[in-house]
Amino acid sequence: MPGDRLIYNALVLTLEPGAPPLACGYVAVQGERIAAVGQAASPEKLPAAGEQLDAQGGLVMPGLVNTHNHGAMTLFRGLADDLPLDDWLQKHIFPAESRYVDAEFVYWGTRLAIAEMIRSGTTTVCDAYFFANVARQAYLEAGLRAVVAQGILDFPVPGVPDPRDNLKVAAAFIDSGENGAKGLVTSTLFCHSPYTCGANTLQQAKTLSRKRNLPFLTHLAESRSELELMQQQHGLSPVAYLDALGVLDGLTSVAHAIWVDEADQEILARRAVKVCHCPECNLKLASGVAPIPDLLKRGICVGLGTDGAASNNNLDMFGEMALAAKLHKVMRADPTCLAAAEVVALASREGARVLGLGDCCGTLTPGKAADLIIIDLNQPHLTPLFDPYSHLVYTARAADVSDVMVAGRWLLRNREFLTLEWPETIDQVQSLMHSRGLLNY
Amino acid sequence: MPGDRLIYNALVLTLEPGAPPLACGYVAVQGERIAAVGQAASPEKLPAAGEQLDAQGGLVMPGLVNTHNHGAMTLFRGLADDLPLDDWLQKHIFPAESRYVDAEFVYWGTRLAIAEMIRSGTTTVCDAYFFANVARQAYLEAGLRAVVAQGILDFPVPGVPDPRDNLKVAAAFIDSGENGAKGLVTSTLFCHSPYTCGANTLQQAKTLSRKRNLPFLTHLAESRSELELMQQQHGLSPVAYLDALGVLDGLTSVAHAIWVDEADQEILARRAVKVCHCPECNLKLASGVAPIPDLLKRGICVGLGTDGAASNNNLDMFGEMALAAKLHKVMRADPTCLAAAEVVALASREGARVLGLGDCCGTLTPGKAADLIIIDLNQPHLTPLFDPYSHLVYTARAADVSDVMVAGRWLLRNREFLTLEWPETIDQVQSLMHSRGLLNY
Repeated sequence: MPGDRLIYNALVLTLEPGAPPLACGYVAVQGERIAAVGQAASPEKLPAAGEQLDAQGGLVMPGLVNTHNHGAMTLFRGLADDLPLDDWLQKHIFPAESRYVDAEFVYWGTRLAIAEMIRSGTTTVCDAYFFANVARQAYLEAGLRAVVAQGILDFPVPGVPDPRDNLKVAAAFIDSGENGAKGLVTSTLFCHSPYTCGANTLQQAKTLSRKRNLPFLTHLAESRSELELMQQQHGLSPVAYLDALGVLDGLTSVAHAIWVDEADQEILARRAVKVCHCPECNLKLASGVAPIPDLLKRGICVGLGTDGAASNNNLDMFGEMALAAKLHKVMRADPTCLAAAEVVALASREGARVLGLGDCCGTLTPGKAADLIIIDLNQPHLTPLFDPYSHLVYTARAADVSDVMVAGRWLLRNREFLTLEWPETIDQVQSLMHSRGLLNY
Repeated sequence: MPGDRLIYNALVLTLEPGAPPLACGYVAVQGERIAAVGQAASPEKLPAAGEQLDAQGGLVMPGLVNTHNHGAMTLFRGLADDLPLDDWLQKHIFPAESRYVDAEFVYWGTRLAIAEMIRSGTTTVCDAYFFANVARQAYLEAGLRAVVAQGILDFPVPGVPDPRDNLKVAAAFIDSGENGAKGLVTSTLFCHSPYTCGANTLQQAKTLSRKRNLPFLTHLAESRSELELMQQQHGLSPVAYLDALGVLDGLTSVAHAIWVDEADQEILARRAVKVCHCPECNLKLASGVAPIPDLLKRGICVGLGTDGAASNNNLDMFGEMALAAKLHKVMRADPTCLAAAEVVALASREGARVLGLGDCCGTLTPGKAADLIIIDLNQPHLTPLFDPYSHLVYTARAADVSDVMVAGRWLLRNREFLTLEWPETIDQVQSLMHSRGLLNY
């Protein structure tokens, strides 16, 4: 079953469970979907195709899935670092958001995020922020797969000055999306946290997303102070509190899940809750280290995320893979913990499951969307190559991504953008920053 | 005092203590040395120069200093990962070294390491391995500044089948270097560790290096098992044991220093011992986390290092900066710990001091060697730019380095090698690997 496009002369990782790397591999693409994956020892054994692309020995794999991001916060990248969490949030980020964030800010901040994500091999992202309709437009224009979520808090936020409107705005965003999306963008909502959203808000938001079979997203158990506050206010851990509210199920994805004890982990497993692990952000803000090996042992589905660029400060999934693989080894004093192949799966196949897109993307499987990337292996730091999973996790970097395809459409070829005007984007971003007095070098 | 070459239109970080970033900055270079550093608001205010280079708004800073590496181990990159330390070392690395490592292996492995280091902005490296004379030749050919050290162990190693010859070989290496080096390469020795070198060997090696005013290098207090062994064998911690032997002083640089209690830290501070911090390797092998904030508080000089590519698996100092800055924050539950500017200093100025090269390089200071790099800032993940130190540590990547100069000589221009033939190097490496049966993709 040949596709109308064929990528050949590649080392292919399908990321299907247990599948071996395919040397002399190819991927055939028909329209938006993968038609076939295989090996051909010589060119004449390749399936016929309308267009052929020689991957020149590069590594072809599913695009990376960033399960937790706040796209437009790229414009606050490096605004405030190395500060206590409360100072950072209360004295820098919240004031900056209330002063600067509007539709134009979100549009260009999201475009900048999209540029960075495409360049670094991300093909699907979960982006939770304000003015979600504007962000959605940016994703549709650039052709990047996204779960875009309208942020919900019980206090005034950009675009929703009266918090009583927060669910109405989210519902309107969701309802307006179904026509425009055509499957590339999922429109949903994101409750910021159990300490910024009241019980009613959390429950009504969950009801809204449950009715539409959409993922329900929230930050959960990120900091020790959140744990202490929930215990004080409700006599329950953050996880137990959300469970008591009835908002935890298989369509709930929680970011961080750091302060979760065994009872909490048992709840997460029983409810089939999905977890977004954001190690770079967790370390930088000194929030703590999520017990990922324990969650995985319980069969909980875990993906990786970068979080927003104000707290990371990049959207580079290679960095998250590298850190996730190493961090848990030292925390457990066990160098066999989270082996390379497992970490690559978290960043692709498992991440897609976290976002409810397991049937759509995350592996190179015939019938799934043609969301794939090519890694340029002909480089000093990728030579020699004994084990491609090891290289992806311990050696490769975002800049090694040379080509990116989403839904059968090339977004990046030979490191050049095809669907996003890069000089225009950076010019618009700089002019926006200067016009707002957000001065930088 | 104009130089004969001028790099202008740059954001310059001199890394001199307390010096502010210089917007519209320039660096004038005269021969091998920095002649002047300054700011010019308009082109006509620039000093005259024979040759001018427009840095196009890029960031110019001292080249990075990798204080601990085993260069030729690039050829074992990814050979064995995610294994218990003993299995990794005894079942994979030591057998591979005894089977494969010879002069040709070291030459091409070091060339590959040099290519990777130049591309990622390292201008000075400490490289401790076997066949050090061959490695030195590779550094001199490529023009990269290095402290090259002959490895010493009290058992048979590549090139020194009889361990009774180990000091003789090291002395011959040192003595043969002084003419060929001309200041670019320092030739010294490296005692592998207090558990692979006996007391006599350690003391004689220190005597040899002390006589010649050369740095004495060793691994120290890397693992819990080393700590337990030293306590068992000598009734002392690794640090106290080396102190009892009289080998600790201001010209001693120790790699890792993880298992050091307060008494050990006090010894390191009193003896002015220098420390190489290699966080990626320490996490990957689950060795532990060095108490770097405590060492710094005691005034101990600390640099960053990658360790060899068999245990990291790359030679990327940006990765070490990113991890060092974040790791200690979470270990101390303090997000103000190891702020970005301090980490950049560890990777440059302080690293030079660790290697006894503080007067030679590590800052952009008139009279010092012109060892500098240019970072291409015109990229999505480096936009916007509020704080250049934050970007270097939390956002930038090795591939952002566009130009590298060592001792006034360009080694990399617009990401192209000028002193090292890249296709030839990779071809020779691959043909060496295949001829040895070290099969890889």
